[in-house]
Parts: sequence; C-alpha cells; structure tokens
Amino acid sequence: MRGLRVGLLGLGVVGAGTWEVLTRNAEEIARRAGRRIEVAAIAVRDVAKARRLVGDGVLVTSDGMEVVRHPAIDVVVELIGGDTVARAWVMEAIRRGKHVVTANKALLAIHGNTIFSAAREHAVMVAFEAAVAGGIPIVKAIREGLAANHIQWVAGIINGTTNFVLSEMRARGLSFDDALAQAQQLGYAEANPTFDVEGVDAAHKLTLLASLAFGIPVQFDKVHIEGVSKLAQEDIAHAERLGYRIKLLGIARRRPDGFELRVHPTLIPADRLLANVEGAMNAVLVSGDMVGPTLYYGQGAGALPTASAVVADLVDVARLDSADPDHRVPYLAFQPDALDDTPVLPMAEIVSSYYLRLRVEDRPGVLADLSRILSAAGISIGSMFQTPHGDSDADIIFLSHDAREGAVDGAIDRIQALPFVKSGVTRLRVEHLL
Amino acid sequence: MRGLRVGLLGLGVVGAGTWEVLTRNAEEIARRAGRRIEVAAIAVRDVAKARRLVGDGVLVTSDGMEVVRHPAIDVVVELIGGDTVARAWVMEAIRRGKHVVTANKALLAIHGNTIFSAAREHAVMVAFEAAVAGGIPIVKAIREGLAANHIQWVAGIINGTTNFVLSEMRARGLSFDDALAQAQQLGYAEANPTFDVEGVDAAHKLTLLASLAFGIPVQFDKVHIEGVSKLAQEDIAHAERLGYRIKLLGIARRRPDGFELRVHPTLIPADRLLANVEGAMNAVLVSGDMVGPTLYYGQGAGALPTASAVVADLVDVARLDSADPDHRVPYLAFQPDALDDTPVLPMAEIVSSYYLRLRVEDRPGVLADLSRILSAAGISIGSMFQTPHGDSDADIIFLSHDAREGAVDGAIDRIQALPFVKSGVTRLRVEHLL
Repeated sequence: MRGLRVGLLGLGVVGAGTWEVLTRNAEEIARRAGRRIEVAAIAVRDVAKARRLVGDGVLVTSDGMEVVRHPAIDVVVELIGGDTVARAWVMEAIRRGKHVVTANKALLAIHGNTIFSAAREHAVMVAFEAAVAGGIPIVKAIREGLAANHIQWVAGIINGTTNFVLSEMRARGLSFDDALAQAQQLGYAEANPTFDVEGVDAAHKLTLLASLAFGIPVQFDKVHIEGVSKLAQEDIAHAERLGYRIKLLGIARRRPDGFELRVHPTLIPADRLLANVEGAMNAVLVSGDMVGPTLYYGQGAGALPTASAVVADLVDVARLDSADPDHRVPYLAFQPDALDDTPVLPMAEIVSSYYLRLRVEDRPGVLADLSRILSAAGISIGSMFQTPHGDSDADIIFLSHDAREGAVDGAIDRIQALPFVKSGVTRLRVEHLL
Repeated sequence: MRGLRVGLLGLGVVGAGTWEVLTRNAEEIARRAGRRIEVAAIAVRDVAKARRLVGDGVLVTSDGMEVVRHPAIDVVVELIGGDTVARAWVMEAIRRGKHVVTANKALLAIHGNTIFSAAREHAVMVAFEAAVAGGIPIVKAIREGLAANHIQWVAGIINGTTNFVLSEMRARGLSFDDALAQAQQLGYAEANPTFDVEGVDAAHKLTLLASLAFGIPVQFDKVHIEGVSKLAQEDIAHAERLGYRIKLLGIARRRPDGFELRVHPTLIPADRLLANVEGAMNAVLVSGDMVGPTLYYGQGAGALPTASAVVADLVDVARLDSADPDHRVPYLAFQPDALDDTPVLPMAEIVSSYYLRLRVEDRPGVLADLSRILSAAGISIGSMFQTPHGDSDADIIFLSHDAREGAVDGAIDRIQALPFVKSGVTRLRVEHLL
C-alpha cells in the first residue's frame, strides 16, 4: 500500500516533535500501520528555518491553504493552535475531503459540533488524541476501551502547569506567585499563564472528555471554571493536616437529572493514586458502571509525548483512510445521531463535599451559631478544627458531607452576614473519587 | 445495520458477566457501536440453569461445536478457559470464518502463533482485551495508543491474587500462608491457587504484553517465572525499611541484544505509583521512547470488569466485521510479516539491581570477604545494613546497583561456600522503573 501523505500545519513545539517521531520511528510505525506515514508538505511562518530542519523533498510554504488544498495530501495535521486561522484551515481541509488530526483542544471545545458535523458530511476522520492529556491514550481508552460502560464520572489532572505549581506549593510551602515564577523559569508555565492557571485549558479538555464519556455535544460554555491563582498556602497546609491534597481537577459526573461539568481546585484524600500525581504529570480517573474505577497516567505535555498521540491518530487514519466511513469510530465515541441532550446542571445543583474556612472572633456561641446555619441548610459536618489567630480571633475549618452547592452558597451568605465573622468564607470542594 | 450475533462459549463468572453487560447496557453499547450486539447462542454444561438465566430466544446447548458451526453466528466469545477444548472450538470457529473474542491468556500465550496465523488465513479477527489485566484497556493502549513508540519496557502488576496476598503480608505482617488463606476466604484466590501464586498466570499475560509491545511472536516458554510462595515476611519488612515495597511484577524489557521476559517478586521504591497499587487491583506501566512512562490502573479480574473488556472487543468487531481485513489492527499490534525474531535473553544475561540477604557469624572480616566476592564479580553495592540474630549471628542485607544476573549467580555460589555463611542467600530483584 502507498504511504499516507501528511500535510503539517505548524512546526512549533508539537509540530517539530511530530516530525521527529515520524522520522526517528518511521520503521517501527510502518511495522504497525502496514504503510509508511510521510510528511509531504508543511505550512510554517519561517520557511527557511523549516527547510533547514526537514531538508528537501518536502513542500514548505508559509500558506496553510496551499497545504490544505494540495491534491497529494491525505491528512492534515493541525498544530498551530487557536481558533481562528486553525478553524479556517481545518474546515477547508474537511471540505476538500481530507482527514484531520489535531492537538487543538480550544478549537474542538468551542467549535467541535460544527467541525464534526462537517467532517461527517464529507466522510472524513477528525482525530484528537493529542488534545487531551498529551501522550496518555485517554481519548481511545474512553471512546473504545470502555465502550461497554455507562461512564459514571471522569476526574482528571489535565493541566501540567497547575499540577506543577500545586505540587511545589505543597512540597516547599511556596505561595502561588512564587511557585508560578518557578514554573515559568523551568519552562512548565508560559510567560502568559492565564489559560493554564485560571483553568481554561483544563476546561477545554474536560469538555472533550465529557462528550466522549457521556455522548453529549461539546458544551464548553457550560463548564464551571475556577483556577488556582487565588489558592492560599494555608489551605494547602490545612488540607494536608486533614489528610487531603489539593489538585486542580476537571470533573464530569452523570447525575440522574443532568451532567456536572466543572474545573476547580479540589481536596482529594492523600492516599488516592490521583493525589500522588506530582509535578507536571497528568492523570485521568474514569469510572464505568461495569469496569469500576480505572486510571491513566503519563506526560500531559511536551513535544514528544504530544507527538506520540498525534502519530497514534495518524496510524488509525492510515488504517481506515479508504474504509467505509461506517466502520470508523465516531468522532465523540457515540454515533452522531445518538447524542444525548440531557442538560448540564447549573453549579447550584451539583453535589459535593466542601471545605470551608473562615475567621471569627474567638468567643462562646460562635460555633453554635455557625452549626445552626449549616444544619438549617441541610449541610452535615464531617469534621471541624480551629486554630487561634492572634489574641482574640480563630480560624475555623469545616469539612462537610455531601451537600447541594446551592445550599452551601446560601449558608455562606448567611455566615458572612454574622457580626462575629471577620473574613469571607473560603470554599473548596472535596471529592473522594469513589 | 443488523445486529452482531454472538455465540457464547461458557457461562461461568465472565460468561455470566458478559451476558449481564450486554443486557444491562444494550442501549449505551448500541449508541456507540451503531448496531446491536446480541447473544444468539450459548454453549454451557448446565443447559437448564443457563436457560433460566437467559430466557427463551437464545439457543442454549451443551455442544460448543454446535455454537461454533452455527451459520447465524458472526463472532464466537470463548470464555471456558484452558487450552484443550477451548483450542479446538476456537480453531473451528476460525475455520468457519467467525471472529473470535477470548479472555483466555493461557490459550493465546501457548498457542497464539498458530491461532493468529489461522485467523489471518481465514480473514477473521481474534481479540483478547480481557485476557490481560481484566477491565483495563491495556491491550488497546499498547497496540494502538502507543503505536508511535519504540516501547522500551513494560512492568505490570497483572495478577490480583498475588497482589492481594502481598498487600496483606505488608499491611498486617502476615506470613504467605496466612495471607493466602485469607485471600481464599474472601474469594480473591482459588482453592487451587498454584497458577496465580507461582506466577504462571502473570507469565501468560506478560507473554501477550511483550508481543504487543515489541512485535515478537508469543514465547511463553521463554519467560522466567518465580512466584511469591517462598517470599518471607522478613524480606517484606526489610524492603520497607529500605524504602521499597515488594510486588509480583511481569517485566518485559528491550535490551540491545535481546528481550528480557520475567515474572518475579520485585522491590520497587515505595513512592512509585506502582508500589501503591494495593489489594486485588492491577496496574501496568509502559514506557515508550517518545511518550515516556505511562500507567494504566483498574480491576484486573471479576465478572463485570472482565466482561467490560470482552464487550469492548465486541464493539470493535461490530465496527470492522465486514471491513477489508487490511483495515483491521493486527492481532499482535504489528503486521504479521513484520514480527521481530530478536531472541529472548537467557536469565543469566538480564540486568537488574539486587537485594541479597544472608545469615553469617558475626565476627570481624566477614563483611570484607563478602565485599571482595561481590566486587570481584563486578557487583557494586549501593547500600547495606545488618541486624543481629541471636548472640553470635547477624543477618546482612545488600542492595546492589545494576549488575548482570549471571555475575550475581556466580557471586552467590561463592558466598554460600564461605565457612562463616550460615544460610542460603535470598536473592530478590529491584527495579526503579525509570
């Protein structure tokens, strides 16, 4: 069989990694795929630099549309990121009947429904293993490996930058700002880290995971997003004292009346595997009704791990390139006409356990008043401790049992209105992942 | 598209689980597969009992060949185990042009080359996700998810019974016999636990993992196998003191001159995720040259987790049933004509770190003599400690750096011949999994 001809859009970190993987492991890949996978064209800003890397024999151009429209190209690999130019090139590739492999989570989380619909119309594949958790084959695991299950929930450490920052905050007692500065020095965080530390990148990935797990359209705008930039060192220390670690989790959970989709810092019992995923590593826990909990761990970013996922998708494309489209795995794991329109729940309706911290005047009756408010809201407390602050104040920490978020919102409002309460209430969510 | 018609061989634990998964999750599975997956025939010893479970509308027979030869059956699911009757039925199914899904690791580890060759000739699929690590989609992960990589090594906790026994030995200080008795009481070990505790089951699974990872024929007879039945409680305690835990690992490693294939109790640093896989859970660590280390964790046995894997294979079959055989994923991840005949290394040529324990007379010069022998054999010691035993003896524990197993064998022979050495040398292997 003739080789699969790839058009590469972008030759940045992941693009250069993809070139390297396809070059260095060409034989091993062909032993598996049964045909060679060859980069035939590259679109890149700096043509001269790219030419030095790839040598002759490959079309190098600064015009992405030239690659996308090139008749010799079977599959377009989009690695430029963003959702403007990338979107235009991907849509044009699809219209030209070319398969697409992409690592672009923002593009798919925001425009996935349109893109998959166009791809279906033009009978081409759109594969995106590299868009979630880098080299970990989590898309394939959920989409195919767990196909026998009602997936109940997914909880993932799916942003390496924040996990590195949180690991450093815990291990070395650093503030968020200092840990972030260090992550930037070491190359784990970008100069503008907003998308990572504010949870937006994790929410893009969670959007895709939820669609794959539940068979729902991509709904990025429905994801509740809280990042880690406001996380205080003292909360990490209190959590540790209580036997928990704080991780930025993306959580998707099936409830009887809808789906929960949320990204936020989360307390996890310290003995869970997920709590022990440190540094820039990623891990995703997926629970199915038949298989129980399963976990997938590995490098979630970096040139070669991400390229490993890109090339795995290319091997799939190489196998199914000329196959009847009906034989291919659906884009979002479920047949496009079998997607579920059950709604995503508003945040007030999610159910979680909670960590609440507040500062109060240290005088009799305080705990009774707080307990009465929590109890009246139907919030049951699992544990509590208090530490003195100065001469006359104390910090109180509550851990609740499962409660409805709306009830907690109401209780927090009432607590903050109490005369002896001297701070806002810091609220974090707790997941036991069982 | 019409439903995929399944003939089930065996209705024991996994067979009944498969029936349950296909029944309870029929809608969710069809939403993914695009067609229904229906059990049309069952071969089982107790026909009356099976009839009560499955109701009417399904052919129930005590004759496996009747199912295998039934013209309405598209795919045969073999869940009877063993390698005699199962082999005959699987081979006949293949000759009749039916796809095969099996959970039978012994059958494939021993007869896989013949079976895959026949399947290729008759253009049918043979899928075996359930044969390794139960519900964890590890076969798919290695075969497809990591297709871009030279896999460097695989190390797995792939037998739940032994992992449960070892977990109990460590957590509660039990002897092997007591921990095993408890595992049997709780249903984690069979009445005859030999295949599990002596490492044979793990070796069957490792055989398959190695073929998937490296593209080599199945070679069960080349696997070095040591079980856990001779493991002493004191070694678990010493290991813990040194910062290690002992797990029964299946290890497959690519070396420049051949492959290592071995199953044995192994010391792992206690802070590794794999060291923290407790109870009957399974986990497999796979390291690829591009992706780095990745880990897969979940339930490795049990009716529903194993059935989850069986049904995932059925979904794959449902998709590719009528496809051109060239579009299917190869049985052992690599094209059948691209398998590698690089040899499996004899045990004397593997490289590992070692834990050595021996009892000696506690007198001057002992350590010097021992050190001289180890050093002369090219074995470098990383750490050592000794504990008194009675009035005049001591137990000495060495941890070596990497050494060739043959050199360690020779050193052990010489040490055991020393006049002041009062015990055999207990030798365990140490893996840092990096």
